Amino acid sequence: MTKPPKTLGDLFHDTLKDIYFAEKKILATLPKMAKGAQNRELKAAFEKHRVETEGQVARLEQVFAIIKKKAKGKTCDAIIGITDEGAEIMQDYKGSPALDAGLLAAAQAVEHYEISRYGTLRTWAGELGLDAAVPLLQETLNEEEATDRALTKIAETAVNQEAEAA
Amino acid sequence: MTKPPKTLGDLFHDTLKDIYFAEKKILATLPKMAKGAQNRELKAAFEKHRVETEGQVARLEQVFAIIKKKAKGKTCDAIIGITDEGAEIMQDYKGSPALDAGLLAAAQAVEHYEISRYGTLRTWAGELGLDAAVPLLQETLNEEEATDRALTKIAETAVNQEAEAA
Repeated sequence: MTKPPKTLGDLFHDTLKDIYFAEKKILATLPKMAKGAQNRELKAAFEKHRVETEGQVARLEQVFAIIKKKAKGKTCDAIIGITDEGAEIMQDYKGSPALDAGLLAAAQAVEHYEISRYGTLRTWAGELGLDAAVPLLQETLNEEEATDRALTKIAETAVNQEAEAA
Repeated sequence: MTKPPKTLGDLFHDTLKDIYFAEKKILATLPKMAKGAQNRELKAAFEKHRVETEGQVARLEQVFAIIKKKAKGKTCDAIIGITDEGAEIMQDYKGSPALDAGLLAAAQAVEHYEISRYGTLRTWAGELGLDAAVPLLQETLNEEEATDRALTKIAETAVNQEAEAA
């Protein structure tokens, strides 16, 4: 018996499980980053993004419902690798004036992973005619892009100057 | 004896080693992706980006020279995770009409990782007064962003429609 060939619908479902796992991992990581951050603005940005991430998880659950599948994660090696690097920075730069700059860079790597995944999922949802899923994925994509821009602004002002001046 | 606290210069050097490792890994991965791709445009995009990546590696070596360090990589868990996911897609979707869509998504995850790293490095180079490094990092950042846009264009036209029509 040969399995039927996998379709774009399967790929959409697989990628949805990947980002669902990633968002849960990010939810668990953000409080540690907020705790580690020294700069007040950065700490607040991490806290704000944690609340936003809860809404993004809920939106993913709506997308699972649209394709009539159970909301379920699948180990995402990419987010594990990206967050492991962030954890290494937290350890190596503990007590250093450059810690915040490192945390910020780690957070932007996470945001960019999400931006690529949500962009992909939104495009596929359109191709698959999942019209109710498109605006949900677009809304999260917009939030991730806004978070990335906010982090860039903090990076270009407070945090790196603190690291450099120290 | 306590070690001196790490600085933004150390963080720049560590991150340079991280992306140097990542670029070498990408150089080794792109020929496999080009070979796997079914769509001619996608295959050509991967081949073009392989040549570009060689130039990006050379630019990183110039940046190492600017900070008077030996060009050397440091295991980058993030790129390992991201490319492992791509390899899994290649295996799971082999012979499927959705393979190209999956390869494309994997490539965009790689591009976004690089975009975040080069954006970070360019900002830090400016803060550190490494004026000769800024345009080198900016040039690669521009190339990565252009590659990402080119992949999005292929995704929105040929590849996903093929996967969906199959």
